[in-house]
Amino acid sequence: MNTTRIGFIGTGVMGGSMAGRLLDAGYPLFVYTRTREKSQPLLERGAAWRDSPGAVAADSTVLITMVGYPSDVEEVYLGPDGVLAKAHKGCLLIDMTTSRPDLARRIAREAARKSCMAIDAPVSGGDTGARNGTLSIMAGGDEQSFTRALPVLQHLGTNIVFQGGPGAGQYCKMCNQIAIAATMVGVCESLAYAEAAGLEPRRVLESISRGAAGSWSLSNLAPRILDGDFTPGFFVKHFIKDMGIALESADALGLPLPGLMLAKDLYEKLAAKGLGDAGTQGLYRLYKDTD
Amino acid sequence: MNTTRIGFIGTGVMGGSMAGRLLDAGYPLFVYTRTREKSQPLLERGAAWRDSPGAVAADSTVLITMVGYPSDVEEVYLGPDGVLAKAHKGCLLIDMTTSRPDLARRIAREAARKSCMAIDAPVSGGDTGARNGTLSIMAGGDEQSFTRALPVLQHLGTNIVFQGGPGAGQYCKMCNQIAIAATMVGVCESLAYAEAAGLEPRRVLESISRGAAGSWSLSNLAPRILDGDFTPGFFVKHFIKDMGIALESADALGLPLPGLMLAKDLYEKLAAKGLGDAGTQGLYRLYKDTD
Repeated sequence: MNTTRIGFIGTGVMGGSMAGRLLDAGYPLFVYTRTREKSQPLLERGAAWRDSPGAVAADSTVLITMVGYPSDVEEVYLGPDGVLAKAHKGCLLIDMTTSRPDLARRIAREAARKSCMAIDAPVSGGDTGARNGTLSIMAGGDEQSFTRALPVLQHLGTNIVFQGGPGAGQYCKMCNQIAIAATMVGVCESLAYAEAAGLEPRRVLESISRGAAGSWSLSNLAPRILDGDFTPGFFVKHFIKDMGIALESADALGLPLPGLMLAKDLYEKLAAKGLGDAGTQGLYRLYKDTD
Repeated sequence: MNTTRIGFIGTGVMGGSMAGRLLDAGYPLFVYTRTREKSQPLLERGAAWRDSPGAVAADSTVLITMVGYPSDVEEVYLGPDGVLAKAHKGCLLIDMTTSRPDLARRIAREAARKSCMAIDAPVSGGDTGARNGTLSIMAGGDEQSFTRALPVLQHLGTNIVFQGGPGAGQYCKMCNQIAIAATMVGVCESLAYAEAAGLEPRRVLESISRGAAGSWSLSNLAPRILDGDFTPGFFVKHFIKDMGIALESADALGLPLPGLMLAKDLYEKLAAKGLGDAGTQGLYRLYKDTD
């Protein structure tokens, strides 16, 4: 018999799929999300609604959060009817939101004070990874908490790596976003140059995709750009949030990151043109729409 | 019987291996290179030395050049004892140097005036690709010249793509370099951040290499960086040359490329620190040596 009772807060595109996999696995599931309708499919499949983060926490032995911004994480965990106000001793808290490393550390400290365990475990792999349980999960916290979380995380991801103490999962996720940011700039500039030079960009991709210029973005997003498909796999506005976290934390570490700073500037220009709800490959439009 | 006689000008690391493969294939080979000793291994295997680019051209039906800078290409083709002063009618000229698109077009025009054929066909794939005949070859010129070059190029590369008219090969190679430049910035910033945050960078690579942040540079150069191995696969100083060509030509096309501009600035700072002879992964040092 499964004595683990899972609470899930934040059942949007990512969280909804992830929570669904935990229902599939047979866990009793308690849910809260800001917009209740987003939980409807889960409730119809047997999840139980609770009216606040605190109420979810009170009924859970393992609590997972997948919300939007660091400010949401802060409110959910540390707010007046929040998780830490109501969680029982020994409850394992797993924040899978991409959020601030320093906030992850603060939550870990507060959790310890209440005899709870906490890890930060942001993910990459997008909506497809969430649906198929093939996310990459980057975890930070004490190793004992990570070990306890592992059986649950294994329903969600295939590449689950313990990255170190509290905040290390968030730092690792920032490494991921930093690499993506500059790579997307390169992909978009390369395609824009190809077009400006009168080349057939698909033929250019044939020449360059499999060599030293190759990247996930070039193989997966460049073809979508050339199809004129700017629908979001990952939203520009969320990417700007992540780059902001990365830059702030790099600044706190005394590390200048000019490439990331430029990428964030470019994406902010894109958002200012009304393209915040496009996918990250929309950056290409900045090089094409020269108005 | 093989009536094709190949001339090869520029037998450095890349050119030497490529010329060697043509000897293996049984072609009579005439060579010239600025530093004669670099041709010695080819001469010992039966290649014939000629004293100038013009002298090589006079004995060849197909002439290949693989030299250093656009200024070398210009001198070799258009100089007083150069290729175009001595080549016979119908000679096929193949410049495989990474060089300026506008120079490629000028050579094609001059070649046509002398009833020669000319294509630009720069490569990617490095010294390993040159040795194994697995280069990616990006060709520009008229299609008839490309078709005639193909049987020779097939000894040198496995991914041979016709990119369009004269200069299109060079433009395509610039697309390759533009994508690499920003990607390398992202890889180095990601690793520098990982270290500054106290993460174990190899574990970070485990988390991020196979997902959306993945790239050839992350998989192949990041591990070398972490081994402290900055030996050149591709020299910083040559990369700066290529980025200069890309920026000049983008400027001529009226296309601003801020990511490429930043990458070139960073690599120039690196060269100013005396690291022009390091491999391109040496960019990481710029983020670590903060003196």
